[in-house]
This record gives sequence, structure tokens and C-alpha cells, in this order.
Amino acid sequence: MALADILAEDRPRRPGTQAALAELSETFGDRLATGEDVRRAHSHTTTYIPNQLPDAVLFARSEAEVQTLVRIAARHGMPIVPFGVGSSLEGHVNAPFGGVSLDLSGMNEVVSVYPEDLDCIVEPGVTREALNEHLRDTGLFFPIDPGANASLGGMAATRASGTNAVRYGTMRENVVGLNAVMADGSVIRTARRAKKTAAGYDLTRLLVGSEGTLGIITRLNLKLYGIPEQVLSGVCPFPDVVSAVNAVIQTVQIGVPVARIELLDALSIEATNRHSKLDLPATPHLFVEFHGSPASVADQAASFAVIIEENGGGEFRSASRAEERSRLWKARHDFYWASIGLRPGAKAIATDVCVPISRLADCIEETRMDAEAAGLIAPTVGHVGDGNFHVTLLIDTDVPAEIDAAEAFLKRLAERALDMDGTCTGEHGVGQGKRGYLSAELGASVDVMRAVKTALDPSNIMNPGKIFSFETR
Amino acid sequence: MALADILAEDRPRRPGTQAALAELSETFGDRLATGEDVRRAHSHTTTYIPNQLPDAVLFARSEAEVQTLVRIAARHGMPIVPFGVGSSLEGHVNAPFGGVSLDLSGMNEVVSVYPEDLDCIVEPGVTREALNEHLRDTGLFFPIDPGANASLGGMAATRASGTNAVRYGTMRENVVGLNAVMADGSVIRTARRAKKTAAGYDLTRLLVGSEGTLGIITRLNLKLYGIPEQVLSGVCPFPDVVSAVNAVIQTVQIGVPVARIELLDALSIEATNRHSKLDLPATPHLFVEFHGSPASVADQAASFAVIIEENGGGEFRSASRAEERSRLWKARHDFYWASIGLRPGAKAIATDVCVPISRLADCIEETRMDAEAAGLIAPTVGHVGDGNFHVTLLIDTDVPAEIDAAEAFLKRLAERALDMDGTCTGEHGVGQGKRGYLSAELGASVDVMRAVKTALDPSNIMNPGKIFSFETR
Repeated sequence: MALADILAEDRPRRPGTQAALAELSETFGDRLATGEDVRRAHSHTTTYIPNQLPDAVLFARSEAEVQTLVRIAARHGMPIVPFGVGSSLEGHVNAPFGGVSLDLSGMNEVVSVYPEDLDCIVEPGVTREALNEHLRDTGLFFPIDPGANASLGGMAATRASGTNAVRYGTMRENVVGLNAVMADGSVIRTARRAKKTAAGYDLTRLLVGSEGTLGIITRLNLKLYGIPEQVLSGVCPFPDVVSAVNAVIQTVQIGVPVARIELLDALSIEATNRHSKLDLPATPHLFVEFHGSPASVADQAASFAVIIEENGGGEFRSASRAEERSRLWKARHDFYWASIGLRPGAKAIATDVCVPISRLADCIEETRMDAEAAGLIAPTVGHVGDGNFHVTLLIDTDVPAEIDAAEAFLKRLAERALDMDGTCTGEHGVGQGKRGYLSAELGASVDVMRAVKTALDPSNIMNPGKIFSFETR
Repeated sequence: MALADILAEDRPRRPGTQAALAELSETFGDRLATGEDVRRAHSHTTTYIPNQLPDAVLFARSEAEVQTLVRIAARHGMPIVPFGVGSSLEGHVNAPFGGVSLDLSGMNEVVSVYPEDLDCIVEPGVTREALNEHLRDTGLFFPIDPGANASLGGMAATRASGTNAVRYGTMRENVVGLNAVMADGSVIRTARRAKKTAAGYDLTRLLVGSEGTLGIITRLNLKLYGIPEQVLSGVCPFPDVVSAVNAVIQTVQIGVPVARIELLDALSIEATNRHSKLDLPATPHLFVEFHGSPASVADQAASFAVIIEENGGGEFRSASRAEERSRLWKARHDFYWASIGLRPGAKAIATDVCVPISRLADCIEETRMDAEAAGLIAPTVGHVGDGNFHVTLLIDTDVPAEIDAAEAFLKRLAERALDMDGTCTGEHGVGQGKRGYLSAELGASVDVMRAVKTALDPSNIMNPGKIFSFETR
């Protein structure tokens, strides 16, 4: 599409957009794409939130190019929406006020690996699988695994976590430092490569989870870990969610350093059996994994066996060979696709909350009853070692009443988590979908966030319309 | 002393100070102390930086009282300097522009302990030893241990860490959320009790390490850990620093989850032998500790034994009984006092830097040679698993030439750490002592920090003169 036609569309847009796009077009030529398909692909979200297309997509190749873009955008007050692979779940990549989607997938170099120091430096477009592929011969790996093969820049920007977080932490704990282009076009490096520092404000953690609203991440210094000498995975059935969660609480409490401990409820097992050709009994299961030396793994497994026994769990089916393990975790990761099999043709809307673990069984159980009462198909899986779980709603997004029922359910779920002193999002982020809960969750803290946002991005060009519910132009 | 006499002293002071103090005196009566001794005790620092007394000291008892103080101070533009136990090392509690020292030691309640969730809520004046005493019957403990029996509020404000950080992280990783009174008198709670969250900017991490310059911490939600089933400590001599550090690198790299791994160089061993009545050979040593199940501890110790062997270490003398362990770690913690024995009558000036671990041996060795060339007595100890070490200078602070030599040495040390892509402070913080290195370390990031500071504390009443080298009034 010609820029003139795009700009003729009636939608909220900053006055300087046309001039900014003209300047970008002149600077970047073909790498400023305006075709409808590419623009649509860059606003694709797996939510019920409608797509809001950017006016153009810029494929950047370097930090210097990002800086050039930001300077042009800043001069004209045009929004920039950073884009990795588009796997975010709360509308982070939508462009409600138009402007440019900044595609960082071309900045995909692993810049350096420091095996002695257990860290590396990567560009933001490197995906987690690409990094682990690159590391294969070093004996090291990067553990954070949100399921999707997300870009590491996107994972940092949304403070992603996933199945391994119970042992290795989230992106919050695993970014040593980063480079970012700020709203005025300056480039900052937030920390040196030392493992810890007490030198001033923790800008690394301020940028991690800021969802592109404060600056654009152009380089990441990430922690790495030695590939464990031994890995043991397995699955174990439980009579109900409460006993499975109690087993998790005990595991965490006695300090078994479990690497993954995932709950799949009965409905999720049903879906997974069908999709991934497993034959698990249709009751809640824990999928677990232990990492360590052979002695440590045996020790962990023995402790866990006692906990299973005490909580009425069934047989622990282990998978120590790599291909069995891969099959198991592929089944877990494919849950999103498996869930769609529960209602062919429906769209799967994934949400996430996180509560103190002592409230987890209650929260999951109340949520299950709520879904039942609302007539919603809502399989539940969770990173239960962290008190974090996902409900996936299978809805027909062409039926407004279903969207309404889903939205009302999601609202009750967020409020339930808040009532239990939890958070409306453990790992998916706020984006557009969770903006409405932030004040209820954090009160006056949101004013402080807004003051920081205003100080660092006074013209609100950095991913506007995300995190905050006010719709500043 | 009468307020009028204090205010008659010629020193930098905000114009509204007199009015603010009068109002505080009326509101708080006797709890606003103005005696010289109490004011001096609240500006005491263990640095060569001269004491800068506050005009008064307020002993607060509640968050509401802190709020009242801040509102009065904000109205008159008077500085507030938060104070825990005064164990900070870089002049954090000095009052270069006068104003009030806010003593939080009276806010020392352990508000709640949640054994199932492994966390607790405390007031900022609770010390780490008091918290662990309180937890004694729960089977839980709080691991962060900077040596001094510091207040937890102060530890959070300075992003403290210490001997256990290699296993349990620093205050950065162990504060789940906090309450703070901000410069406008508003109270914020930065996070709910969920173990992880992706809900907006990480204000918890922004406040942790902000040294009282953004807000006053009035409540902390801290992670707890199960007391390990078994603990094994021990010491091991090495022929030189390089071989000891190489042993540490291997230990970290193969993923032995060591709980503490501390280096003491030959001079430090000499001092410690004398002070703590040990009889260790006068060569560099590692002090180590393993936590876990009996099988795990045995496994860790066996792995470490191989590493000792490969790096030419001597006999590992273990201490598994609690009293032997206490004696060992008391000796390590008493190092500060032991070091003074190397030069009776001298003052011990402790500094800290942190570098990527691959550069640690070089950094320590170059620093040792530098001290020798400069004629300085400079024993070195370190949290070497993190690449973090301390040099303690024994100097006569009455001799200006010695202060000059020490300052020049400290400058070279900070620059050496920066040249190795490290930080000028791994855990002591910036305070007044390290302000001059922040720009060299972090460049344009310092402008971003300053913008955040200005946005959240426009009148610069929150611990002014710390972190930033500009001397705004």
C-alpha cells in the first residue's frame, strides 16, 4: 500500500506521522515496508483484542539504525512499537496510535560468549532456541523457556519466564545488563559484566518488563548455566488438583531444587493425550524435571517420591533418555495447540495470574468452578512451583456473547488473584489486556510508574497505549 | 544543643530548615533529638570521609510518622537522611546539607511470617540477626549476610549482599516487594506477595539500591529459605591467589551449588590467625560452606575435593559441627577487626569492587602489587564466587599524605575494575565515596538515573548528595 492511502485511514494518529514516515522512507528505502500483509503480521496477537496495524514496518539491522529511527520519530512525535517474533499474549505489538513497528528480528547476532564467566552478549532478535543452538558445543545453556521460540529482546521486554523459572528465575534474574535506545535517541548501557553491582539505580531491572514503553533494547548481557550432568524428567498423576499442589508446596518448602514442576489439570491431560499421542490417566498430573549430578538427581527424585506418596500421587513414570524427555516437554509446550482440539474451530485465549503458593489450590479450584458455572471450556496448566498458572479459554470470537463471557471471566480471575495478594499477570505482562487491573493491584505505585514514563519519554512515543490505562496521545 | 545554636553553624543548608525543624519539634517532641552526641552517632561512617552531622535526629515509630515527617520536610525543602544501624561504608548516612537523620531502628516489628509461602513481612529496622532469631522455630532462615548486623531496610536500600550471595543472591533477588514513603509523602506498595510478576515497571528493584534517594523504605516483603538439613563448612589452603581463584571458577562453572566461597589472602590469614586464635598456614585460603541434604552435601564436597586437587590446594579441614562452623565464620566476619591488628592505632578503610570472574585473579594480583608499590598495608578478602572482593587499607587518618595515598590507590582500584568490565562497587554502594566513578562506569545511564531522581524527588530532599556527583541543593 502507498503511504498516502494508509495515512488516509481514519484512526488515532499523531500529527507528525506523515513527515516522519517520509523521512524514514528516504533513509531506509525498501526496509520500510507498508504492505498490508506485513503490517497485519506485525500486529497479530493471540488475544481477543482486535488487530491495530502500524502504518509501516521498519526492519532494522543495527543499534545505530534504531537510533536513527528514534531520532526521526522523536522529532515528529511518532510512535514506535518494538517487535521480536510476535509471540506476546496481551496485545503488546498492536499500534493503537499508528506509527512504526520496529522489527528487530534481523538483529540476531550472538555477539560474544564468555564460558569462564557464564554469560554472553546477544542482539535482541536472537531467539532462545537459536542461542541454545549456538551454545551447543560449549556445555552451556540459557534456561528461560516461555514455550514459544520467542526473541530474547521480547522476553526481556516482557519479563518472561516459563517452565524453568522455579529453578533458574525469570528474565528479571537472568539479564546482567542491556543496551537500550531511549526516547531521546541516546544509547545507554545499564551495567558492566560484573555478576553483581551496587552502582546506582537498577536500570537493568527498570527496562526488563517495561514492554518497550521506556526504551528499545538493542543488546542483552545474559547469564548462562552449565548443562546439567544428568537430567531426569517424569510425570505423576494425582487424584485432584489440591493434592498435586500440596505436593508442589512440600517440594519447594523442603528445598528440593526442582528444575521444572508443571501442573496439567484433567482437561489439559485429555487434550494433551489426544494431541501428543500420550496415554496418561485423565486426572491432574505433575510434569517434573530434576537437574544435577547423578547423585543429586537421585537424591532429588528420592525426596520427591516420598512427597508423592504422602500426597496420594500415583506411579512416577520417569524419562531419563533425551528423546523421551523431549517428547514429554514437547507435549507440554504444545499444550496451546492441544487445547484447541478440545473445541475445533475455536480460538484459544491464554491468560495468566500468580498467587502466593499457599493460595494456589484455592485459586485454581475456584477458577475451575467459575468456568463451569459460566459454561466456558477452560483447561488449566501452570508453573505451580512459582504459584503461577494459565487458563486457556476456547471461545468462538465471532460470537460477541462468548467474548463478553470470556472478558467477564478473565476479570473475575484477575480480581480473585488480587484478593489472594497475587498479581494479575505472573509472566505475560500488561500490554493492552491487563491495563485495567494495574491500579487495583498496585495503587499509588502506578503514579510512580507514570512519573518515570513521563520523565523518560515525555512525548510518549515509546509503545504508547501499553501498561497504562490512560490513553495519552 | 538548642536548635538555634545548631542552625547558627556555618554550613550548606536549605532555607526552609529552621521552619521544618520547628514544626517537627512541635509534632514529635522529645523524639526529635538535637544533642551533639546523638547527631554525631548518626553521621558516623567507617570511611575517611569527614562526618557531616544532621541538624536533628528523628526516631520514628510507624509508617504514618515517616509520612508526617516527609510531608513537613517536603513543604520546607528540608533533606531527610534515612538511618538503620549506621553500618554503611561509603558515607550514606552523612548529612552534607543538614536536615534530619531519620532513625528507623524503632520500627523493628516482624509483621508476618508465611511458612508455606517462604516469605515474611518486616519493618525496616529489623536487623538480619533479629529476623533469624525470630524465625528460629520455623525451620526457615533469611540468608543474606553482609557481615555487620545491619538493618534489613538499610540492606535493601544499599542492595547489600555478602558471603551467601553466591548461592542465595543479593537483596536484589530477595526482596519480593516493599512499602516506601515517596518524596511527596505518598505511600506505595511496589508488589503483591506473588513470587513473580509481570505487572508494570519493577519499582521494587528501582527502590532496592537507591540508597534513600528516591523514597524511604517502611516495610519489606522478604524471601525465606528452609534451613538446610545439613551444613558443612571448611577451609583449604592454596599456594597462591591465582590457584585459589581458579578453584572457585571451576566450582561455579560445573555448577556445584556452593553456599559460601570466600577468599582470604595470606595477609588476611595472618591477621585472622592472630585475632581469632586460628592456626592456619600463612597462605591464601578458601573458606567454603555447602548446604543441602546429606547426600547432596557429600556430593558437593566430593566434587570440590577433586577441584582442590587439580588446583594444587592443600588439606580441606572441615567443620560440620555448629560450634566449629560458628567459630570459622565468626573469624571471617571479624576480619574487619582482625585487620586493624596488622597496624594497631590505624583506621581500616574497606572498599569493594566486582569484576567478571575470569578477570578476578588478575585484578587481585595487580591490586596487591599496586599496594606494595604504594607502601600500603592492604589485606584482601572476597566473595570470590561472585567476582567481588574487598581491600582494607590500614591508614593513619591524621596523616594527610596517607589519606592522599589511600585515595589515589582507591581510584586506581576502581579504574582497574572498570577496565576489566567490572563495577566500582559490588555491594557497598555509591554513597559519597564512589560518586566520582559512576559516569565512567555507566555513561549516559547516569543521565537516565538523574531524570528518574528529578521526576520522583524534584526538590531533592531524599538523601541529597549521594549517588550523583552534582551537588544540587
